[in-house]
Amino acid sequence: MKPAGECEMESIQIKTSRREELVNITSELQALVKARGWDAGCLLVYCPHTTGAVTVNEAADPSVMRDISVNLSRFIPRQGDYRHMEGNSDAHIKSSLVGNEQWLILENGSIQLGTWQGVFFCEFDGPRTRKVWVKFLAG
Amino acid sequence: MKPAGECEMESIQIKTSRREELVNITSELQALVKARGWDAGCLLVYCPHTTGAVTVNEAADPSVMRDISVNLSRFIPRQGDYRHMEGNSDAHIKSSLVGNEQWLILENGSIQLGTWQGVFFCEFDGPRTRKVWVKFLAG
Amino acid sequence: MKPAGECEMESIQIKTSRREELVNITSELQALVKARGWDAGCLLVYCPHTTGAVTVNEAADPSVMRDISVNLSRFIPRQGDYRHMEGNSDAHIKSSLVGNEQWLILENGSIQLGTWQGVFFCEFDGPRTRKVWVKFLAG
Repeated sequence: MKPAGECEMESIQIKTSRREELVNITSELQALVKARGWDAGCLLVYCPHTTGAVTVNEAADPSVMRDISVNLSRFIPRQGDYRHMEGNSDAHIKSSLVGNEQWLILENGSIQLGTWQGVFFCEFDGPRTRKVWVKFLAG
Repeated sequence: MKPAGECEMESIQIKTSRREELVNITSELQALVKARGWDAGCLLVYCPHTTGAVTVNEAADPSVMRDISVNLSRFIPRQGDYRHMEGNSDAHIKSSLVGNEQWLILENGSIQLGTWQGVFFCEFDGPRTRKVWVKFLAG
Repeated sequence: MKPAGECEMESIQIKTSRREELVNITSELQALVKARGWDAGCLLVYCPHTTGAVTVNEAADPSVMRDISVNLSRFIPRQGDYRHMEGNSDAHIKSSLVGNEQWLILENGSIQLGTWQGVFFCEFDGPRTRKVWVKFLAG
């Protein structure tokens, strides 16, 4: 039997529709928290893909997502001094800069976010079917 | 009643004085750890603002903070190909690159840092009154 | 006596051989997990150096590591508008962009990684003898 509070990681599937795109996954994460009955603690959202990332940023104005995506490609262009033969070195670099993980605080079964914040899956080499792993630590 | 070890998140207020600035919050965090009696585990410092961030870097020479701040603005300039109408897309981009969260290790009631490390709130669209949320996980 | 599940942080030593280099430390981390008998939860890999970082990215093709390293230096060059006198401001900036920490999920004593993922220590001002701190949270 597992120790109290121990649980396996969960997974959320995401379908992206463009090569570069930031997809709001806040409601999917909140729905998972509710379905599992997680109450208070911290939630790790982990991207198992090496050409994607997870971030928290403004969810109110979609222009912010567009500005992030377009401007990352300005100084990390698709074509450049790359030796990796799959043509997606830019996506790997962006993944390590934005980071493949994001922690969120849970209180009373609710993801705590700043007024303007949402959680975004960052697609840098789509379109693809992606997933993020979700792990809850009570506390 | 809350399960043993469970506690709500705390908050630290920060007043920034310039548009772009890295503010050392290490002593405020350590004071909070002492006040709450947190002993061993991990501490999440979470920025609920979408134009700020949290990072760990050198605390000995303020030039390092200046060099980080000035050079981020070199390749993420304030004016550019931005559609977000609030004039702070650069700050949103920096926030996702540096990241809005930072974890620290606690042992014996003390934040464990490398010799030269301090914890910094990164202001990218100030001056403002800001806050970071702090969550402790025992372990 | 320590509360159940509480343990002190561990450390892994890394010798780097160039100024800039990404070193795969996945097997060292997995060996530590096995040696400590850690089963399920989350693992924090924390870099106590201010000119290094930790990231997860593709482990199959070493060109990806080379492309990340070379291209970071393209927009964060070694020489530039820097006031820090030690000649390694570029390394400090890269450290805050990539981030000095990385979380991993553990299940059944095994680090959970995506198909192509490995964990890398990022050296930005070597060669040096470095270390990462490792902290396990059960859950």
